Amino acid sequence: MGRKRSGRRPGRPDTRQQILAAAREIFAAEGYERSSIRRIATAAEVDPALIHHYFGTKDKLFLEAVEAPFDPKTVIPEVFGPGITDVGERLVRAFIGVWDSPNGTRAEAFLRSAVNHPFMSKLVEQFILNHIIKTALNNLDAEIDHVSVRGSLIASQLLGLAVARYLVKLSAIRDLSPDTLAKIYGPTIQRYLEMDLTDLHLPPSD
Amino acid sequence: MGRKRSGRRPGRPDTRQQILAAAREIFAAEGYERSSIRRIATAAEVDPALIHHYFGTKDKLFLEAVEAPFDPKTVIPEVFGPGITDVGERLVRAFIGVWDSPNGTRAEAFLRSAVNHPFMSKLVEQFILNHIIKTALNNLDAEIDHVSVRGSLIASQLLGLAVARYLVKLSAIRDLSPDTLAKIYGPTIQRYLEMDLTDLHLPPSD
Repeated sequence: MGRKRSGRRPGRPDTRQQILAAAREIFAAEGYERSSIRRIATAAEVDPALIHHYFGTKDKLFLEAVEAPFDPKTVIPEVFGPGITDVGERLVRAFIGVWDSPNGTRAEAFLRSAVNHPFMSKLVEQFILNHIIKTALNNLDAEIDHVSVRGSLIASQLLGLAVARYLVKLSAIRDLSPDTLAKIYGPTIQRYLEMDLTDLHLPPSD
Repeated sequence: MGRKRSGRRPGRPDTRQQILAAAREIFAAEGYERSSIRRIATAAEVDPALIHHYFGTKDKLFLEAVEAPFDPKTVIPEVFGPGITDVGERLVRAFIGVWDSPNGTRAEAFLRSAVNHPFMSKLVEQFILNHIIKTALNNLDAEIDHVSVRGSLIASQLLGLAVARYLVKLSAIRDLSPDTLAKIYGPTIQRYLEMDLTDLHLPPSD
């Protein structure tokens, strides 16, 4: 993005990267909700139609920009669809399923990037809050208060599991089967989703 | 360590770094227990007495080599000394205490290094298992089975809390007070320490 700008560019081999760089900038600065394709097009100096051509929807553009290791929409219904009972165990199984799949390499790059680049951290936070938590709770047949707090608590245990098992590679955790991990971590996730948070003086619920 | 070696070196300004590099190599390859000061001295091509002069004990050499953000021995007695009740809450408070102290910067560097360098991961695993978990359980008035598994589970939640709060900086978790975090995460830690692990087909207890 450091080159001299001279009006809107036509489609060129680097246009896709140009759009992704602008998208990361706008999403990180404005947040997902307030970022429009039009605004990103202006920053990338391309026509909005070109963004739709390359990426389809804003949602898909975001997933590409954040280098998401999977599309939450393909995983969430099976985890949250069957209702709140045992959602913790199903979530752990699905989470490990992504990491142990061919997408595991992408998941590892995604996590390293989140940890190493403050810029990516903002995008990862939006990915977790907007694309995973909100989509998940729309699929759930229960009213949940303090959505951001609960979602972030759940994320903290899943992040920790990923760091321990796939980055630092603590052998005791690497040696456990997905089934055992689901039985151990499932109740933790379930508690973060359902525990009573009154008396903890949290900011107003969202 | 890539230079031509020509017999044992006398003490020189870079001797300290030389010893630390050799120590990291030996600790990572051999494990803490099997690594001796003598063996590290041979690898560093210095006299063992020089290592004692610079670092004191093997324990202190290890803490320097792994760039530990704190000496577990100064924190563990207050967390584990009072007994197993509420050890989870006390551990979370002490953990956040380190991160929110001037040592927080060192803790962040330590965690980044563990996540980014497979070489450091081996040292971090030993730091967690040998220096934290074993010391902790020696301070505890209870018999604990599956020490490595339980310790690694506890580490996975604390690592996740650190990643979420200090590296990715999820705002919902950054906004919570140490007291609230202790009440939320304490029972998770407590469960990993005390939960019944029979029926999970774990490898034999250690």
